[in-house]
Amino acid sequence: MKTEKIYREKTPKSASLFAKSKKLHVNGVSHNIRFFDPYPFVTQSANGKFLTDVDANKYVDFWMGHWSLILGHLPKPVLAKVREQTQKGWMYGTVNKNTIELSEMISGAVPVAQKIRYATTGTEATMYAVRLARSVTGRKTVAKIDGGWHGYTSDLLKTVNWPFRDSESGGLTDERHIISLPYNDLEGSLEILKAAKKDLAAVIVEPVLGGGGGIPATREYLKGLEEFAKKNNSLYILDEIVTGFRFRFGCIYDSMKLDPDIVTLGKIVGGGFPIGVICGKDEIMSHADTTKYSKTERAYIGGGTFSANPMTMCAGSATLETLKNSKSIYSKIGNLGETARKQLAKVFDGKVVTTGAGSLFMTHFVTKDIKKIRNATDASRCDAKMLQRFHFEMIAKDGLFFLPGKLGAFSNAHSDADVKSLVNAAARFSASI
Amino acid sequence: MKTEKIYREKTPKSASLFAKSKKLHVNGVSHNIRFFDPYPFVTQSANGKFLTDVDANKYVDFWMGHWSLILGHLPKPVLAKVREQTQKGWMYGTVNKNTIELSEMISGAVPVAQKIRYATTGTEATMYAVRLARSVTGRKTVAKIDGGWHGYTSDLLKTVNWPFRDSESGGLTDERHIISLPYNDLEGSLEILKAAKKDLAAVIVEPVLGGGGGIPATREYLKGLEEFAKKNNSLYILDEIVTGFRFRFGCIYDSMKLDPDIVTLGKIVGGGFPIGVICGKDEIMSHADTTKYSKTERAYIGGGTFSANPMTMCAGSATLETLKNSKSIYSKIGNLGETARKQLAKVFDGKVVTTGAGSLFMTHFVTKDIKKIRNATDASRCDAKMLQRFHFEMIAKDGLFFLPGKLGAFSNAHSDADVKSLVNAAARFSASI
Repeated sequence: MKTEKIYREKTPKSASLFAKSKKLHVNGVSHNIRFFDPYPFVTQSANGKFLTDVDANKYVDFWMGHWSLILGHLPKPVLAKVREQTQKGWMYGTVNKNTIELSEMISGAVPVAQKIRYATTGTEATMYAVRLARSVTGRKTVAKIDGGWHGYTSDLLKTVNWPFRDSESGGLTDERHIISLPYNDLEGSLEILKAAKKDLAAVIVEPVLGGGGGIPATREYLKGLEEFAKKNNSLYILDEIVTGFRFRFGCIYDSMKLDPDIVTLGKIVGGGFPIGVICGKDEIMSHADTTKYSKTERAYIGGGTFSANPMTMCAGSATLETLKNSKSIYSKIGNLGETARKQLAKVFDGKVVTTGAGSLFMTHFVTKDIKKIRNATDASRCDAKMLQRFHFEMIAKDGLFFLPGKLGAFSNAHSDADVKSLVNAAARFSASI
Repeated sequence: MKTEKIYREKTPKSASLFAKSKKLHVNGVSHNIRFFDPYPFVTQSANGKFLTDVDANKYVDFWMGHWSLILGHLPKPVLAKVREQTQKGWMYGTVNKNTIELSEMISGAVPVAQKIRYATTGTEATMYAVRLARSVTGRKTVAKIDGGWHGYTSDLLKTVNWPFRDSESGGLTDERHIISLPYNDLEGSLEILKAAKKDLAAVIVEPVLGGGGGIPATREYLKGLEEFAKKNNSLYILDEIVTGFRFRFGCIYDSMKLDPDIVTLGKIVGGGFPIGVICGKDEIMSHADTTKYSKTERAYIGGGTFSANPMTMCAGSATLETLKNSKSIYSKIGNLGETARKQLAKVFDGKVVTTGAGSLFMTHFVTKDIKKIRNATDASRCDAKMLQRFHFEMIAKDGLFFLPGKLGAFSNAHSDADVKSLVNAAARFSASI
């Protein structure tokens, strides 16, 4: 295959390093999605919009650290603070000033964050959110979405990848307490919820499916779920790990006039350093308060060795401060996304449907009768192999990097020229298939 | 109370910042154990053996970032690499060279690490280890230890704190698949294991109870558990998140001639940046291999946005390299620990029993008939309030910091003078009670 040959020729050092990596690691990686055929290049450094591999190839990065780097790699104001913090320590294990600064910024922008707890990853944040909801309601069942991705916690590891009826992993012991809903299908969802309502602790949903394919929920859908949850005394959890501070300075739920009980954050708010955040209303979060409840009554949430570590807190604050002070970043990257979605759809001329919102964008190679991508089921009926081929071809020939098969993200380091490169690459690929 | 007055007088800025922190965060903290009465001081910076608070008080730090900083804060060789890495990026989201370097070092020192997967926290690492064991064996029950602490994962959150018969949290839904054993009581443990053997997926144990009170297991006990597990085709998991690279360049299991199937690491191997590691034998880890098994058959382990991020990997490598090249660090800090344990026992003259191993040390204020601390049950019968008082008094009066109630750790930044300060403080406290 010609593309593979080009890739192999330009990445000999990656090939030999990855061979070493395979001896050391399962599948050669530490995250299944980071592997792609014939082998992923090995990153040497990053700067601005670029990733550079060990063979000195440069790639315009649309993956941007699992979409956590909204300002690009090494944005100056964040880098300056990070370097300053390296002189003050990266691990205190104690209450610190940096945490208070970040929390003031988050709580000012996210009304539901009346109380905040930090964890170190999104996986932990959603685990705690679910535990809290179960503790508050005294119920056990949690409803998620077909194709919804909330990290690896055993409490939510179900119906992530097609076919949704199969287990996501061996070794899970409590899947029966997770039920799953058809995304953007309110009637279908309510039917399932009604059947489970007596034991329903919470509904958890991403306002835009991230891992599930960059698919926004309709306001009607999200509001419908919320109304059901409230009427049923279940908690409504919005997982904004991908969407928080992605489209505006704050959460998307707020601009959609939704009223969740708990919101989870991650990615952007840590500035690229490890973070997970549980935000909630006072009355909910008080159920974790050690001064009010015994250990059996309260929910054990948040914490861990690295929670609220000063480096993450500092990088998060510097990122949010930059976003807050900028008048243009969100409109700039939103426009890049909008243009990319439109022009990609145009050059692919019916072969793809683009999804996404704001600076997030995704191309689905449609097959047969699919005209619209409303949920992860539609997305999984698309031609995933063709998407992988498209992404891999751009890596090999165009120096453009998407994690093959995954959603792309614009950052403030990108510009119109990057949309142009992308659209040119797409036009060439479209002509070849 | 005089001590509290002294503390309040020297920490006015902490008092007002912590009041702010309480408005923003549940209990004012992001980890329950970080709160202590009347309020924890707020850290401003750290360097070497010192933490400095916002009122410019300096504390000799025996907490050392939840015992993750074996070289102290900002050790020069690690700082140099960290600063270099800040110019190359802290978040790639891709395979990188730093990961391969760290894994080569770990696998060279830890024989069971035939394959490695990185997670971002210890909580994640133990969650994955348990999931893997359940997947490999097709069984569900996991045995842990009374007082064993493996992080917050729902899969292991049971029998952590006295009284062990009570739930550790509201909102847990699958505690029935966790059983618990009396530490260092082989006969009692085997009895429980035998009753559960048909569905026993794994036994997980810390070779030295960390959170549970710095209590080493006997070799006989660990070997006995191992023999039972092997005979029963259950997996044997050693949680070396605290003990890995703490006493020697490698794990403690190796010097105890044990043969675990899976070992979890964290803390030290990340150099103070967020990390969790699942290490295992090839035959076990292959059950996570996506090229060998379908999603339902394999265990979904490791990964997450921040797994194997280049900053953690770089700080981990620099830390391990420093330890590897030093001829003296382990003997130096081991001697400090040994001396501290002996001299503390001496000045407290029967009021305390000291536990720990190598550079880890703990003082238990014994009550009534307790002469030996063999397990967390013995430890919980000690006078925890007196220990808190001792630790708090050292914070207030002596500028010595232990997280109140927790195990202390020596780092390479400490010296004989710090043992002396500690013993002097203890002598004064002992005379006052």
